[in-house]
Formats: sequence, structure tokens, C-alpha cells
Amino acid sequence: MTKTAGIIVIGNEILSGKTADENSAFLARELRDLGVDVRKIAVIPDDLQLIAAEVRLFSQSYSYVFTTGGVGPTHDDLTMDGVAAAFGRKLRRHEQLEDALHRYYAQHLVEPNLRMADVPEGARLIGGQGMWFPVVAVENVYIFPGVPEILRKKFSRIRETFRDAPFHLREVYLRADEGQIASVLHRILASFPNLLLGSYPYFDNPSFSIKLTLESKDAAYVNDAHGLLLTELSKLDLEPVRPA
Amino acid sequence: MTKTAGIIVIGNEILSGKTADENSAFLARELRDLGVDVRKIAVIPDDLQLIAAEVRLFSQSYSYVFTTGGVGPTHDDLTMDGVAAAFGRKLRRHEQLEDALHRYYAQHLVEPNLRMADVPEGARLIGGQGMWFPVVAVENVYIFPGVPEILRKKFSRIRETFRDAPFHLREVYLRADEGQIASVLHRILASFPNLLLGSYPYFDNPSFSIKLTLESKDAAYVNDAHGLLLTELSKLDLEPVRPA
Repeated sequence: MTKTAGIIVIGNEILSGKTADENSAFLARELRDLGVDVRKIAVIPDDLQLIAAEVRLFSQSYSYVFTTGGVGPTHDDLTMDGVAAAFGRKLRRHEQLEDALHRYYAQHLVEPNLRMADVPEGARLIGGQGMWFPVVAVENVYIFPGVPEILRKKFSRIRETFRDAPFHLREVYLRADEGQIASVLHRILASFPNLLLGSYPYFDNPSFSIKLTLESKDAAYVNDAHGLLLTELSKLDLEPVRPA
Repeated sequence: MTKTAGIIVIGNEILSGKTADENSAFLARELRDLGVDVRKIAVIPDDLQLIAAEVRLFSQSYSYVFTTGGVGPTHDDLTMDGVAAAFGRKLRRHEQLEDALHRYYAQHLVEPNLRMADVPEGARLIGGQGMWFPVVAVENVYIFPGVPEILRKKFSRIRETFRDAPFHLREVYLRADEGQIASVLHRILASFPNLLLGSYPYFDNPSFSIKLTLESKDAAYVNDAHGLLLTELSKLDLEPVRPA
């Protein structure tokens, strides 16, 4: 079975349009590349009950859950509280994280900084050696910060944990109208019902107007479907073009 | 009561990381500017049952729901079907939309193009005169295409429909560590419990390391909170800086 994932972006600043979320697009690309099927992305406010409800639902629905944001020391950082509530656990100060914070802040450490060492009971630390602050995981939930540079660094340290059989992708670019090829696509799906087939119109590209994507975890399946697609398109006098 | 909104982005291409969603960030900014409080963004696959379930839930939860994507003529365009299913309605070919498609495609029209005229029974057309293809709305759900340029044009035609009392925003930039100011922020919220107060760390900006945002629909309230914040910060010898 293909591993699935859900991504929960936590932050009022995204919902109010002050900050554009880059993290979910990054994680979606990385996870796809690893062979993981991302099934849902949710952007929700810094609200303990909403975080808890979403984490609980996602945790039950997908193989992996990734959260981003809400892990700092201020009043609006509620992700750890929300994840704890999702699993009916308490927050507990984690000794190893506390040590890491003491080393990082040294004499500048103030009590609120230590909030970042408060994690749900039974949380695992992943990424281990050489990371000053490891990734905190609870059950199948992996908790990441909202700052994109830090999220990327942390994810790169643990990404191989999630590797699964790869998706095989073929792309076909056409100069045509989607309506013109709709029936061809229906016939392809009739022959290859498990094919992941996407059709995307482009309105401003000089070299093509449709991008078709064919995907499967089975390389032969996607190749056979690709062959049939080219045959069917040629019957309409449509030849794939090279994207500019 | 402040109007609320939810945004549903429909498209496998976003979840598989092939395309980065620009539409939800655009809508979030526009709606905030109009005084509308966006409460949730969901990105979901091109799957009829999932679309129907999400639309139904969002429609019950928020004043307005905006969908993007899934409105073309091919097999993976299931938004109209999903919205219809959400409200237990059937799809019906809409005469005015059918006419618009005939005018647009003229002799190049093929039957699948007309799928774009199939909308849930009782759907309203908004944006009216001068738009070749108006926005389709069903109850409180506004259906937009996924192509960003077209979404923007269409939204601009109907944006005033959603205008509400504005949010008043003050921003304060600091050179400090979030832990250092956490207790100040707690005191501000104790005095101004209805203030929307955000604290965001920046790690790579040369002129500041924290951005604070203070917001309310009540201008006097946000001004008073801002005054108290400056007083409290000065007690810590912290002066706001100007962002570069």
C-alpha cells in the first residue's frame, strides 16, 4: 500500500494573507519525490481546539502527518498543546531539549524560551546527532517550525525515513483545446483505470496549451498507457510538442 | 458579526507538488482587505465524494466558501459535480452559459466543452454584464477556476459583494528574542483580550528579528493596545525599529 500523508499548516498569518505559505508546497514536492501520496493540506488558525481536532482526524486518516508553525515561545504558539490534546496526553518538559536550549541561549535564556522544550508525553526526537534541535514526533505526527529555511533543513535530515516505492511520471504537452481531447482521456482511463491522469490547461504559454500527466507506481503500466495515449492522439492528428 | 470565509483548493496537481497554489494566498489577502476573516484553507484531490464532503462542511461553517479548480471539460474536473452533491442537487445545463460557450468556441465547439455549462440546479450567475463567463454560486459557495489569471479577473469583478467593516492593523518591528517579550505579550492580551496579536520571528532580516501584528475591527481598541505595548516594551529598554 502506498504511504499517504496530510499536511497541517498552523498560523493566523497565512489565513490573514500577511505571509504566503511556502512550506506545504515544499513538503508536497519532497513527499511526492519520496513516493508518498499527499492527500490533504489544511491551513488552520493558532487555536488549540482546532489544532487538536485537525491533528486527530489527520492522524487517523493518513500514514504520516506533518505540521508546520506554532512552535515558538509566545502566546500564539499552540501546536505542541494541540498535538498533546489530540492524543489525550500532557505536555512535559523534555530534558534533552531543555539542555539544547540552555546550550543555545546560554546566559540569555529566559523562562519562556523553555516552553520550546515542552512536548507531548512520550514524544520521540528524530534526526538525532548533529542537529541542535531535533524533530519532535508523536505517533505518526511530525512537528516542524513555520520558518521555511529551518523547516527545509530539518526535513532534509529525516526525509529518508519516509521513502517509499517511487511514482513514475510521463508528461505530454499539446497544442489543443481540452474539450477536443476529453473523449481520448476517457478511453485511456477505460483501459487503464488505475492510472493517475491529469489534464491542465495553460493560457499564456507560447509552445503548448495543455499539459497531460500520467502517473503510477507501476512503470510498465504508465508506459503502456502513454503508448495508447499517443496512438489515440495521432488519430486526431495531434502530435505532442516540446514545452518551451 | 464579522463575516468568515473558507477556501477550498481542488486539484491533484497541487497535492502532488507539480503546481504551487497561488490562489489561496491571493484570496486570503483580498478577503482580509475586504474585512472578511478567512478561517480555513483546504487543499483536496479531484475526488467527487471528498469535494462534496468538504463543501458541505465549509458551507455550514463559514459565511462564504470559495472553491478554486476543477471546472474544465475533462474527466478530472469534478467541482460542479461535487458542489451539486454537497447540496443534494442535480447538475443541469444552464442556457445562458451554453450560449456563452457557443459564442466563444463558435464552429470549434465540441460536446465536452458544454460540460462547462452544467451547473448545480438553482445556481446563480454573478458578475453579470460584460463577463463572458460569470461566476457560478450555489448558496454561499462561489466557484472559481484554478488558472490564477482568470481567477483574479473574475474575483475583481465581484469582490465588492463581500466587503465588510475593515480590520485595523498596527505592526511593530523589534530587534529582540521572542522569549524576551513573551510576558509582555501576555500582559497586553490580559488587558485587551479581543486583540488579534501575532508574534513572528525572522532569522534572516538585517533590521529586525520579530514582527508583531495588532489587529481589531475597532480602531480605538487597537490604538490603545498599541500604546500599552510601546509602554511595556520601553520598560524592557526595547524600542521599535523600522523594517528595511
